[in-house]
Amino acid sequence: MTIDEMGEFPLIDRIRRGLPPADSDVIVGIGDDVAVLRTAADRVWLATCDVQIEGTHFLRGSITPRDLGRKALAVNLSDIASAGGRPRFALVSLGLPRDLDVSFVDELYEGLREQAGRFSVDIVGGNMSRSALGVFIDIFLLGEAPKGNVMLRSGARAGDKILVTGSLGDAAAGVALLLSPGLATSPSYAEIARMHRDAPVPRVREGGLIGGSGRATSMIDVSDGLAADLDHICGKSSVSARIEAEKLPVRAENRALSSAARGSEWHFALHGGEDYELLFTAASAQAEDLARRIEDETGTPVSIIGEILPAASPRELVLPDGGKVPLDKGGWDHFTAGEAGEK
Amino acid sequence: MTIDEMGEFPLIDRIRRGLPPADSDVIVGIGDDVAVLRTAADRVWLATCDVQIEGTHFLRGSITPRDLGRKALAVNLSDIASAGGRPRFALVSLGLPRDLDVSFVDELYEGLREQAGRFSVDIVGGNMSRSALGVFIDIFLLGEAPKGNVMLRSGARAGDKILVTGSLGDAAAGVALLLSPGLATSPSYAEIARMHRDAPVPRVREGGLIGGSGRATSMIDVSDGLAADLDHICGKSSVSARIEAEKLPVRAENRALSSAARGSEWHFALHGGEDYELLFTAASAQAEDLARRIEDETGTPVSIIGEILPAASPRELVLPDGGKVPLDKGGWDHFTAGEAGEK
Repeated sequence: MTIDEMGEFPLIDRIRRGLPPADSDVIVGIGDDVAVLRTAADRVWLATCDVQIEGTHFLRGSITPRDLGRKALAVNLSDIASAGGRPRFALVSLGLPRDLDVSFVDELYEGLREQAGRFSVDIVGGNMSRSALGVFIDIFLLGEAPKGNVMLRSGARAGDKILVTGSLGDAAAGVALLLSPGLATSPSYAEIARMHRDAPVPRVREGGLIGGSGRATSMIDVSDGLAADLDHICGKSSVSARIEAEKLPVRAENRALSSAARGSEWHFALHGGEDYELLFTAASAQAEDLARRIEDETGTPVSIIGEILPAASPRELVLPDGGKVPLDKGGWDHFTAGEAGEK
Repeated sequence: MTIDEMGEFPLIDRIRRGLPPADSDVIVGIGDDVAVLRTAADRVWLATCDVQIEGTHFLRGSITPRDLGRKALAVNLSDIASAGGRPRFALVSLGLPRDLDVSFVDELYEGLREQAGRFSVDIVGGNMSRSALGVFIDIFLLGEAPKGNVMLRSGARAGDKILVTGSLGDAAAGVALLLSPGLATSPSYAEIARMHRDAPVPRVREGGLIGGSGRATSMIDVSDGLAADLDHICGKSSVSARIEAEKLPVRAENRALSSAARGSEWHFALHGGEDYELLFTAASAQAEDLARRIEDETGTPVSIIGEILPAASPRELVLPDGGKVPLDKGGWDHFTAGEAGEK
């Protein structure tokens, strides 16, 4: 059955019936003009939104609706994580072609519910509109944090170490493997790359620990590519930075694919985007201890990859042979970048 | 210059520079991963989102970008108003074709800023993505209210009077005049209809007064058409309703156009949609007094148009000649309705 045949309100009812009971801070959830929400008085609210658009962020036949639902929420969870917050409430705005099968929406919501459940988020409302334009999933996510825990892009100081969670470049490798049939890698790495592309895991627990540690000085999530997101930290903190290539958490298979696809083994790691790892800074004396603590408590690796420099210093990448090259921000720009296929 | 040539981050910077200084409850606004917001401890939050999609809600050549910006925020303001709340913070998610001229975004934001300023809303964040699909403007709006003021669709009781602000059917007449060149009306009514279609005025002050009055029992805004929105109140409140056609606030020119276009002088008023008036209920003994008070304080007319009935009663429309016809919910459904052109 198409959504055209089912109709908007029956479809919304169907979605609502599929959702788990809401948290007691949800006074009114889906089904009225607004969601009515309560929070503790000593918290600040964190608000973010991010969209997945057919043809820009995904191709309908190349990702399952369930993965798309999980990913659409993951990219927003990653923003709340990067502020050190606890995600709480989501509104889901869908643009849907009339001839889309209802099963697409069912599976999309299966992924959304799964991801929401995993991170204790309530889906409290949203909107559904006909879109002759193709599918889009726009999510608004509210989180909360004690005010003192909120991490921003500003705050990095010369001398701070630069840290990053997890691994870099794998989502970009996944996109390249999808779009360039000539590229080859091992079956096991192809699956790792696909998972990073289609089912990224937001670092929510890690972000909360980093925000609550009192030791980090700035944080951002790596969505546009390490170099571009580091550029945001440098810009907001009025500093420069040096990254050591050999300390970047990049798999050997990723470097090989990056060389083959882009002529540089570091390209995917620095400019690939969509890693959804956390990039953060901490005073030099505390960085090692903070990294180990996050690793111990979450099992997620944390790498110290470089150092914050005074603003006047050139921004540079130190290669494994000791050579230095300028660290261009590069990265993903939604408008100046190439076609979706080139992302 | 196209947005493709300007690039995403310069465009975001340009938008940020154009915004007025933020309210002191905005701890961090546009330009970080999240907006950081504070509110009073004795308030609940109201959250809503609504989108304007090219080809579904508007045709790019038929509405100015400035009106589109005003309208995109107005439809969300109307939702907060219908809950009796005070709008506070907006996030704006834009989907933009690469070849769109930057002036479109500038003018869109001019309208957004104007509308935000008029209702003391801070634009605190958002997102901008390339959309091969055409333009969309998705807005996420947070409001607040003392918990006791929040008005919902539920709460109407048999015997309550049904009230509505302003006038009905004018936006639908505006759409019909745009799309059916055969229709004719006076120049002055054509302009009234166009304004209702392209520049609806959300009833924010009226909603706050109704919520704070302690006398209304339920409320919704008229976005899908009076009959469909009354159906939402009846469904959520488990009641039925009787509407008296001659008490509907409908201009004579509107009835004439509705007859010519849809074969019934009440069609636009009952099923047209996009009125963005407030439909609410109040105990019979208090309705007249409440209506006069809202009129006196805001200058907006308030009409008593019918009565809430027990759930078992048929839902009906009483015609001026005393005849009764079933009041079908009809109204606008994004998927089962006709093409955008028929809306």
